[in-house]
Amino acid sequence: MSCELCNRTGGDLLWQGAFCRVVYVEEPGYPGFCRVIWQAHVKEMTDLSEAERIHLMEIVFAVESVLREQLDPAKINLASLGNAVPHLHWHVVPRHADDPHFPQPIWSTPKRPVTSDRSHPALPALAGAIAAALDE
Amino acid sequence: MSCELCNRTGGDLLWQGAFCRVVYVEEPGYPGFCRVIWQAHVKEMTDLSEAERIHLMEIVFAVESVLREQLDPAKINLASLGNAVPHLHWHVVPRHADDPHFPQPIWSTPKRPVTSDRSHPALPALAGAIAAALDE
Repeated sequence: MSCELCNRTGGDLLWQGAFCRVVYVEEPGYPGFCRVIWQAHVKEMTDLSEAERIHLMEIVFAVESVLREQLDPAKINLASLGNAVPHLHWHVVPRHADDPHFPQPIWSTPKRPVTSDRSHPALPALAGAIAAALDE
Repeated sequence: MSCELCNRTGGDLLWQGAFCRVVYVEEPGYPGFCRVIWQAHVKEMTDLSEAERIHLMEIVFAVESVLREQLDPAKINLASLGNAVPHLHWHVVPRHADDPHFPQPIWSTPKRPVTSDRSHPALPALAGAIAAALDE
């Protein structure tokens, strides 16, 4: 199988369980950008069972909650696209008014250059907070 | 309040309940594009209770399921962005290999012109299918 999310972690591993993993995406201008990836090669949310969908979304929302606490973004963006890589994964993206594309989606033409004013969070602390949120 | 999703329906109403509504978006090149909108003015998924989040996502996934059945898309795209309009709403977008942006996100620079080969679904039938999926 030539799927890049079957063959590779897809980022820095922050947390994983039997069904999902959470990885950190080192995207310039987007500190806190995480992805939540279903471990098995499944294309659509409605290819999962209802219980699996609820489980995956609980992890997405736990990551959102931790990113809001740690980074106080103007908005959180959530997206499951997967046109190029049809293996279920959710983008969880903290947005700030001075980020390269705000208020447009991160996939649009940039409005301003990347600034280095915001640094990436410390990954061990982020990983710990996600684990704590999921153990609650 | 100047929020356009508080003041307007936001599209052709397909279904509504106490907490959410589903509207049809007449987007050229994107037959089947729906939005699921939380009725109250709430910004983030993690501002909802867990039960409310599950309810909203059940409706998103019911719409996805109906659109897959009716339109057989190459992929479904789901997104909750709301940077410009911070009132919870989900985009549910059937994607096809010949649509204007495929495989890129619909917010990127178009790759090809809109073709009229695919027509918009009949809205009464779509509304009926969504209602049936939600009554199951």
